[in-house]
Amino acid sequence: MIKAGIVGGTGYTGVELLRLLAGHTEVSISVITSRAEAGRRVDDLFPNLRGHCDLQFTEPEVERLSTCDVVFFATPHTVAMHTVPQLMAAGTRVVDLSADFRLRDARLWSHWYGEQHACPELLAEAVYGLPEVNREQIAGAQLVACPGCYPTAVQLGLIPLLRAGVVDIRSLVANAASGVSGAGRQAKVDNLLAEASDSFQAYAVNGHRHLPEIEQGLSDAADSNIQLTFVPHLLPMIRGIHATLYARVSGPVDAQQIFEEFYQDEPFVDVLPAGHAPQTRSVRGANVCRLAVARPQQRDTLVVMSAIDNLVKGASGQAIQAMNIMFGLDECSGLQTIALLP
Amino acid sequence: MIKAGIVGGTGYTGVELLRLLAGHTEVSISVITSRAEAGRRVDDLFPNLRGHCDLQFTEPEVERLSTCDVVFFATPHTVAMHTVPQLMAAGTRVVDLSADFRLRDARLWSHWYGEQHACPELLAEAVYGLPEVNREQIAGAQLVACPGCYPTAVQLGLIPLLRAGVVDIRSLVANAASGVSGAGRQAKVDNLLAEASDSFQAYAVNGHRHLPEIEQGLSDAADSNIQLTFVPHLLPMIRGIHATLYARVSGPVDAQQIFEEFYQDEPFVDVLPAGHAPQTRSVRGANVCRLAVARPQQRDTLVVMSAIDNLVKGASGQAIQAMNIMFGLDECSGLQTIALLP
Amino acid sequence: MIKAGIVGGTGYTGVELLRLLAGHTEVSISVITSRAEAGRRVDDLFPNLRGHCDLQFTEPEVERLSTCDVVFFATPHTVAMHTVPQLMAAGTRVVDLSADFRLRDARLWSHWYGEQHACPELLAEAVYGLPEVNREQIAGAQLVACPGCYPTAVQLGLIPLLRAGVVDIRSLVANAASGVSGAGRQAKVDNLLAEASDSFQAYAVNGHRHLPEIEQGLSDAADSNIQLTFVPHLLPMIRGIHATLYARVSGPVDAQQIFEEFYQDEPFVDVLPAGHAPQTRSVRGANVCRLAVARPQQRDTLVVMSAIDNLVKGASGQAIQAMNIMFGLDECSGLQTIALLP
Amino acid sequence: MIKAGIVGGTGYTGVELLRLLAGHTEVSISVITSRAEAGRRVDDLFPNLRGHCDLQFTEPEVERLSTCDVVFFATPHTVAMHTVPQLMAAGTRVVDLSADFRLRDARLWSHWYGEQHACPELLAEAVYGLPEVNREQIAGAQLVACPGCYPTAVQLGLIPLLRAGVVDIRSLVANAASGVSGAGRQAKVDNLLAEASDSFQAYAVNGHRHLPEIEQGLSDAADSNIQLTFVPHLLPMIRGIHATLYARVSGPVDAQQIFEEFYQDEPFVDVLPAGHAPQTRSVRGANVCRLAVARPQQRDTLVVMSAIDNLVKGASGQAIQAMNIMFGLDECSGLQTIALLP
Repeated sequence: MIKAGIVGGTGYTGVELLRLLAGHTEVSISVITSRAEAGRRVDDLFPNLRGHCDLQFTEPEVERLSTCDVVFFATPHTVAMHTVPQLMAAGTRVVDLSADFRLRDARLWSHWYGEQHACPELLAEAVYGLPEVNREQIAGAQLVACPGCYPTAVQLGLIPLLRAGVVDIRSLVANAASGVSGAGRQAKVDNLLAEASDSFQAYAVNGHRHLPEIEQGLSDAADSNIQLTFVPHLLPMIRGIHATLYARVSGPVDAQQIFEEFYQDEPFVDVLPAGHAPQTRSVRGANVCRLAVARPQQRDTLVVMSAIDNLVKGASGQAIQAMNIMFGLDECSGLQTIALLP
Repeated sequence: MIKAGIVGGTGYTGVELLRLLAGHTEVSISVITSRAEAGRRVDDLFPNLRGHCDLQFTEPEVERLSTCDVVFFATPHTVAMHTVPQLMAAGTRVVDLSADFRLRDARLWSHWYGEQHACPELLAEAVYGLPEVNREQIAGAQLVACPGCYPTAVQLGLIPLLRAGVVDIRSLVANAASGVSGAGRQAKVDNLLAEASDSFQAYAVNGHRHLPEIEQGLSDAADSNIQLTFVPHLLPMIRGIHATLYARVSGPVDAQQIFEEFYQDEPFVDVLPAGHAPQTRSVRGANVCRLAVARPQQRDTLVVMSAIDNLVKGASGQAIQAMNIMFGLDECSGLQTIALLP
Repeated sequence: MIKAGIVGGTGYTGVELLRLLAGHTEVSISVITSRAEAGRRVDDLFPNLRGHCDLQFTEPEVERLSTCDVVFFATPHTVAMHTVPQLMAAGTRVVDLSADFRLRDARLWSHWYGEQHACPELLAEAVYGLPEVNREQIAGAQLVACPGCYPTAVQLGLIPLLRAGVVDIRSLVANAASGVSGAGRQAKVDNLLAEASDSFQAYAVNGHRHLPEIEQGLSDAADSNIQLTFVPHLLPMIRGIHATLYARVSGPVDAQQIFEEFYQDEPFVDVLPAGHAPQTRSVRGANVCRLAVARPQQRDTLVVMSAIDNLVKGASGQAIQAMNIMFGLDECSGLQTIALLP
Repeated sequence: MIKAGIVGGTGYTGVELLRLLAGHTEVSISVITSRAEAGRRVDDLFPNLRGHCDLQFTEPEVERLSTCDVVFFATPHTVAMHTVPQLMAAGTRVVDLSADFRLRDARLWSHWYGEQHACPELLAEAVYGLPEVNREQIAGAQLVACPGCYPTAVQLGLIPLLRAGVVDIRSLVANAASGVSGAGRQAKVDNLLAEASDSFQAYAVNGHRHLPEIEQGLSDAADSNIQLTFVPHLLPMIRGIHATLYARVSGPVDAQQIFEEFYQDEPFVDVLPAGHAPQTRSVRGANVCRLAVARPQQRDTLVVMSAIDNLVKGASGQAIQAMNIMFGLDECSGLQTIALLP
């Protein structure tokens, strides 16, 4: 039985880890931390867990966390980087769901996150936890940086085309939309139901923190510096990310085949038949990315549609998938839940 | 391995049976019928099932259905009663999610459903499938009539008080509200998103078909004819039923204790601590009824709050719970999914 | 032209006053205050007002406010009572949308609002601003206390029956539900879209601050102390209050006629034909209360349904209606907007 | 007083015409038709109109319609073209909200709408009713074809750039999203609340009927054939269209200034300050298009955001705007309603 800890268990990725791990037969959670809620029963905060979780939140203490086989960080950025080095030194494996170890370039990280990185020396060691790209490296990693939600949806939608070398890498567009759970469980006027429901808008048009992460991954796939216009939008719903991706091609390309072949052995990427479009509800609560591709009017722009649940394949599910790989478990353990539809 | 069939698999209770049974290790679905969709892959209609269900819809044929150990009817009312007698004769066990066998009185049934009952002789044999009340009879039943969604929420909320004999049985009020999936997957203007969202209203105030079913069950519990005012409302959301129940008491009553004791051994009824109120989201996708009770200002009216997912504890989950009991399986098999929150 | 001021213009009742008064030909807003947003353009905070409102928020200053003919308080409770005495002394008329002057009994007020009332001597002078009950007193008032949102819906639904003396006044039940804009424009985790949408629940079951206000009004109507069980619920939508009211009767009562006659001359109360049920969307954005009444199965419980927009007839619209009466204007001025449907 | 008729009054654009025209002091509606609902009171179908509309639906009869000064067609496509010629002959002016007269090329129309055009000779005479482009022609028109909802949002967002000649006209992208009221008030499973809420998806990726209309308008603006990739999406809400537009530029362009100058005299187009993004809720119920423009990272792709209410500036409001122009009225008459926020 793998002994797991969760740092920062009061956010949405925390409760989602608990929901999914409750069904994982080879992992038991031994500690879940929260400074603000220390001493409170977890199922008092998250009543969906009543009957499924007997834990209480505790203060985050490195000593206790380091007795775990693996620690998940479900914290805002800039938290994990202050504790991870100690856990690494203690031999504990780490799956960080935050942004602290996603970028290889510490200066780029500082530019986008506004402060110095606390342990830049670990950036090279951290493995970017997108199993469809880095499965082998994840298996041997002590520190995995889970991809962001938008980056997961966008990369899974564009990498096959970039690897195939069939699209113009300087004019990529990612028009993405997310449910508000992506903004976390924090009291902000902008995310009130009375503000965010029954409306739709773009945000962070001049620069979202997920942009450098996406460009890093796509440039790796293209083996050259790509350029992406990335515009996120806020959807009036809780869960779900949908990315509509535009890439220019010239000449005949069998994009459907490129996608089907690229993902033919992947357990958590589903390429829809030609002519279909993925709905976010078809992945609600499930660790899957559903993709579709089209070439409207046979012109020179490919359109890729990519849908995930931002809290599952975009966060906690993908973290567990990485953990399964790290510990040599069946990659699908604990991740077989079916999307809730309707 | 129990061989199961589903009649009427294109509705919401049908897809929910499939979602839940996919995680049930002792049941396999061998046939799922739909006249309208015969020949179509199930996961083409319900893309959340892609990768989890390899079935196609077939025409409903008694011969084939009768090879099953158990057949679920996920049909509109008046369908099951025409086929059930043949399946019974063939020795197949039946779990009917529709209203055809819920009322013991054929004349009352005709009054509310507007036609003659096709097999009134089976009404006495049918067992009302509320495990918290009829567990033993369900175990021995060949035909189980699953309770309606409102009746489940209302009965679980009032039966403990009626059994305890502490409330006035002639002035009960059930103010209930349901998400629109309760209306089924049928094209009706009233249930369009543009009509039903961003609004709230009562409906069927002068008489909803679930009233006689609820009164039958509550009268059994009270061992006397009770009288209930039942007003359902339509919620602008997909899943969830919430019932707010009002019952008049006189003198001191420890209602919290009555509920906790009544349900102490029940795996799927959760009595919240005093002072809490159940949220429908805390049961979304889960086979559980969460209850709370209060006595505002210590006056003479008790308020009980009862929340279920209408498609799970109010339909398909409860049907599987009954099946588990009928076949001597662990009552919780396939029903351990945790509610999706947020 | 009436010169109006608004204190506390950054909340939802503030922006709603602006929306409605923009279409009022006899009122101009000369000042709108907000400590937090002083100096900011109003339409920067509320972009729906771009092109319709040229004001900036200013610090609240009594001197400036007292130059207005009328000042609206769109503030949380306990704010108005500290400024109103000075404005009254200056001869300015006041319409308070908060709870500060709604209860006549200062001790009862303190019990529910948790502090001493700052000017209990004004409570007797304040007129409760429900035009359907107090039209004449409003006309002569210098200080009007606008009813709360729930109290408006509940009182308009029960007063005709109480005046007619046909219902048991000790067993009244008000089961009410509100959109989340009723909780105001404040950053609270509970009101996030990710928390409050796609769910339904009761709250404040053991005592909501609107209870004493409702009981005061209903007792006046009954000319005797009534007793009400009041359970509010939170709806997953922005605007709208729906109250389902239960009252016990004995013998024949033509409730439909009682309502139609009681409200026959009221411009903003609409009694629906028998058999109908009001939808909150039918009043969205409009200053109207739609009512319906039924007597299910001709038993002894009447069911009244009452729907308002909590921000219009439940707050800002009713405040303008009161102001129109106070200044001898057409009671409907500025209030003819039609509900937005769909 | 202008005498107006509405053909097809049971859909959403019909009820929206009624809502807006009720506040128009120079127009009275004398007839509103519906085959299905003939004889029924309009406010029985649309309860928001109770107290504001005394009309009944009647059978559509040319004779009666031709006594109107102006007739609005709020019908599905292929209806208007069979009646308009007779009304034209009778001298009645026509504002068609459907697609029948939007394309100048009858063969293109047939290709997209699947049947022969009934009166191709009128296509040249019809004026495309986008006031910001065709104000003068509208003034003199007998037949105005109102733009579609997507075409309004997309054209208003791209025309200034095309007129300025600063963008590549062969690689335009319009990523658009609409609330479900755009699909009309028709019973379809796909548009049920239980299907379309809490989800997001693209649709009609391989070709939406609004594409040729948009390309016609944009090509006019560019004075050359443009090429657009247009991908519409379905939003889980009732009203609102948001278009995110991508256009490639080279070299320095002051896009903010281009937009501000282009629309400086337009009463119903609002260019937001740099750095802002339009929310659909800021136009809910209002006849306005709010626009913003950005150039992320100063790279070579401009991003334009355009938000309208599909039923107002995208349909009925724009139709009234055109009518105001046709009859020499103040262009803003009846169109001053402020968006409902929150």
